[in-house]
Amino acid sequence: MKFIPGKYQGRHMLTTQNWSLAELKEILDLADDMKKVRFSEKYFDVLKNRTFFMFFYNPSVRTRQSFEAAATELGAHAQFLEPKSMRLKTATTAGETVEDAAKVMSRYAAGLGIRILEDKIPAYGDGYALIKEYASHATIPVMSMADDRFHPFQGLADMQGIRSHLGHDLRGKKAVLTWGHGALSRSWCSVQEYMLMASRFGMDVTVAHPEGYDLDPEIIEWTKQNCAEAGGSFEITHDQKVAYDGAHVVYSRNWMSPNAYHDGSLHKAEEIERAMKFTNWICDEEKMALTDNALFTHPMPIDRGHEVSDAVASGSNSIIYDVAENRLHVQKAVMALTMV
Amino acid sequence: MKFIPGKYQGRHMLTTQNWSLAELKEILDLADDMKKVRFSEKYFDVLKNRTFFMFFYNPSVRTRQSFEAAATELGAHAQFLEPKSMRLKTATTAGETVEDAAKVMSRYAAGLGIRILEDKIPAYGDGYALIKEYASHATIPVMSMADDRFHPFQGLADMQGIRSHLGHDLRGKKAVLTWGHGALSRSWCSVQEYMLMASRFGMDVTVAHPEGYDLDPEIIEWTKQNCAEAGGSFEITHDQKVAYDGAHVVYSRNWMSPNAYHDGSLHKAEEIERAMKFTNWICDEEKMALTDNALFTHPMPIDRGHEVSDAVASGSNSIIYDVAENRLHVQKAVMALTMV
Amino acid sequence: MKFIPGKYQGRHMLTTQNWSLAELKEILDLADDMKKVRFSEKYFDVLKNRTFFMFFYNPSVRTRQSFEAAATELGAHAQFLEPKSMRLKTATTAGETVEDAAKVMSRYAAGLGIRILEDKIPAYGDGYALIKEYASHATIPVMSMADDRFHPFQGLADMQGIRSHLGHDLRGKKAVLTWGHGALSRSWCSVQEYMLMASRFGMDVTVAHPEGYDLDPEIIEWTKQNCAEAGGSFEITHDQKVAYDGAHVVYSRNWMSPNAYHDGSLHKAEEIERAMKFTNWICDEEKMALTDNALFTHPMPIDRGHEVSDAVASGSNSIIYDVAENRLHVQKAVMALTMV
Repeated sequence: MKFIPGKYQGRHMLTTQNWSLAELKEILDLADDMKKVRFSEKYFDVLKNRTFFMFFYNPSVRTRQSFEAAATELGAHAQFLEPKSMRLKTATTAGETVEDAAKVMSRYAAGLGIRILEDKIPAYGDGYALIKEYASHATIPVMSMADDRFHPFQGLADMQGIRSHLGHDLRGKKAVLTWGHGALSRSWCSVQEYMLMASRFGMDVTVAHPEGYDLDPEIIEWTKQNCAEAGGSFEITHDQKVAYDGAHVVYSRNWMSPNAYHDGSLHKAEEIERAMKFTNWICDEEKMALTDNALFTHPMPIDRGHEVSDAVASGSNSIIYDVAENRLHVQKAVMALTMV
Repeated sequence: MKFIPGKYQGRHMLTTQNWSLAELKEILDLADDMKKVRFSEKYFDVLKNRTFFMFFYNPSVRTRQSFEAAATELGAHAQFLEPKSMRLKTATTAGETVEDAAKVMSRYAAGLGIRILEDKIPAYGDGYALIKEYASHATIPVMSMADDRFHPFQGLADMQGIRSHLGHDLRGKKAVLTWGHGALSRSWCSVQEYMLMASRFGMDVTVAHPEGYDLDPEIIEWTKQNCAEAGGSFEITHDQKVAYDGAHVVYSRNWMSPNAYHDGSLHKAEEIERAMKFTNWICDEEKMALTDNALFTHPMPIDRGHEVSDAVASGSNSIIYDVAENRLHVQKAVMALTMV
Repeated sequence: MKFIPGKYQGRHMLTTQNWSLAELKEILDLADDMKKVRFSEKYFDVLKNRTFFMFFYNPSVRTRQSFEAAATELGAHAQFLEPKSMRLKTATTAGETVEDAAKVMSRYAAGLGIRILEDKIPAYGDGYALIKEYASHATIPVMSMADDRFHPFQGLADMQGIRSHLGHDLRGKKAVLTWGHGALSRSWCSVQEYMLMASRFGMDVTVAHPEGYDLDPEIIEWTKQNCAEAGGSFEITHDQKVAYDGAHVVYSRNWMSPNAYHDGSLHKAEEIERAMKFTNWICDEEKMALTDNALFTHPMPIDRGHEVSDAVASGSNSIIYDVAENRLHVQKAVMALTMV
């Protein structure tokens, strides 16, 4: 398909679920080409001298690195902004409205990325809600650089990696998403976006976790619908053996329990204490032996020795560095299609 | 007039008052053209690969966004620097002299912007004095990105907005600058620069504020002289009705009283408490009805509900987003004319 | 010699000692040309749209300014990163391994600079060791932007300055490195790299300091070997008159004593108290009169009145601003030769 810069001008990327399967494939095809001819004239000036704003309510090394590099490689410039210096109006404090902020930013930049995770908000869903509010007022594309619910570019990067190793027809391939124990009490966004993507692309999706680690029921519901539409199956299990059996891709990562928020705030220490007891919930060579020579993937950074053993993470079936690199390419692809 | 990159090479922009009216018009004409043909080859490489340093003693979202985007759109790169990591020599501490700092920065960059507001200095005028000290040693243009006294790029952006709506001959047009109550205890720089600009361009300037909110006497004096030279009138009133009557442009914004500094520091809480009592000092539709269908402007961010009502700020005569956008264009114009 | 972009692709620059004399001369020749034709087509797009990561464990104004400008002037973009937002695995905390971090960064960027000084580490040598660990895993060139032991780009900038004033054949020229008292308790890296560079280029190296201010014995040893190989002499003295006598270049700067680290941490206040007693250890006009009309140099920022008098620092033989500017050029040269 011929690349048309700005073909989806102004479209927000808040979750892959808002984009059609054909559009997602178009993004991935473009990302593949951008990876293939990375530093060539072809894409050098697509966004020449344009500005992309990155609003980091939560700091991040990797997301910042890959978004800023993505802008650079298209000839644009990404501004690293920390909203702490921006006084927004709230119920109790004077300041600027989100509407005013979004409208002015739309005059300066060609795109706006926002990252806001669970520890910056009082309740699950509030981060995504804030990004949606920005999007409703902005006349430039707003992109989630990870929020409490979604992480669209991680989902796209995962799928670019899986397609490059397993081919473009993923029907009948078993994608296992398994909880891992760990000392970091991690967000839901990456794993939830992964369920959405794997199901959209027709994979058989199995989610494995100890009891009490259920994910967002609405996103589970969407995943089931995606599977139904694409012809894949969906299963939740608490039995790791069932999960690994015959898998083609294993994705092992820690995530918080739904009880992480209570009494109006996030309780990370409690979560870590609870999670660290499940020492058997680790992806290791013994479990990988149950699979159909599965790929191992993870959105990184990895908590080695908890979520996954060194042998698997650094093994020959691990595609973690490829997937990390793909963040750059899918971000470039979406920027090139939505910004002008 | 033909655009000559670097025509005013090395000229500082500390306040519009240091530039001739003809030069200011040249800047605004160039900004108008840059707005018209924003992303075109015409200005893409004017400052290719040059560096602009931005020194933020005070953080700022908007000023940073617009300056960094301005540099980007000319092919240059703006570095976001926080002087806290720079140890300057003072009366009591070891460190580097401003002379050494300015001379070395002149070797690396093509321009230097500095922002320093009233809360970072012990007395009114000290911020401007520091910028002047940098300017005296630098061999590259130094630009005020807002200090305690002046805000030249805001003044230029205001005037670009007014000219675009009221035409280039502003003689006989009434510019009203009115104090608004508010919970933010704001700087003098924007409103003072606005007085200087409106008076330079021949407008009839009326300043309205409650007793006790006098502005810098020297700048008032310059404004009077500007009016005399350009054929406009100047008036200060404490009566809002007198002010709004027949106005063509209304600019409503909070500012601190001259008593904000005492005992060697700034007392913002006191100022806010005092200001919040003047609840009638708000620009609303009732008052705007007294005008000659006046434009509403404000340098943003707006403290809605205090300085101005939502109805006026978001009304059809509001040019706030245009003026905010103009910051980008006037900054590009001055950079293109002074940096090489 | 013809310039070949990426001629030394992937080579790390951790200290000049790891590069041959011929290679160092090639770098300096290229830096000279880049200085001569600074803003020309010749080098504008050498690293077009590439990314350079700058990891500042320690903040820095000058190093950041010059590296970021260097990238910009070659068409690349330098990302300013603060590793505090990056959770690395340590003996006691969960987090990412340096291997994972380095491998992913190698996918995004064309080069990686790291700055880590003595106050961020428990013992002398640990900063350099961390940089070496990054370098061992990275597939892109890693550059020291100053660590506890080395400062290769400062050494290159010093030598570019000396060569431009004294010519390319420096045999028989006396380079004096003298300790100065001061209130800043400074790092060893700049002065140690200077010893290495001056000795490589055949100068007669004299190091002067009060008793108790010995430098890294291993680097002293390398310097002696360098002198032996290049035909220069090496001497350490505690007598300033002996040092200044007949000197062609004087480099005066404060550095900490080897006792600065004890009980597992750095004791800056103790060091400053001790150093400030040596009030006679200052480079002034009286001492400069003993030299053979010597140049004065210093890596800046200068602690004027302690390390050197104003009269010398601002005198006609001072090359401090030239050397500061050279940081930009040598950094551009190494980037252009090692990154692609």
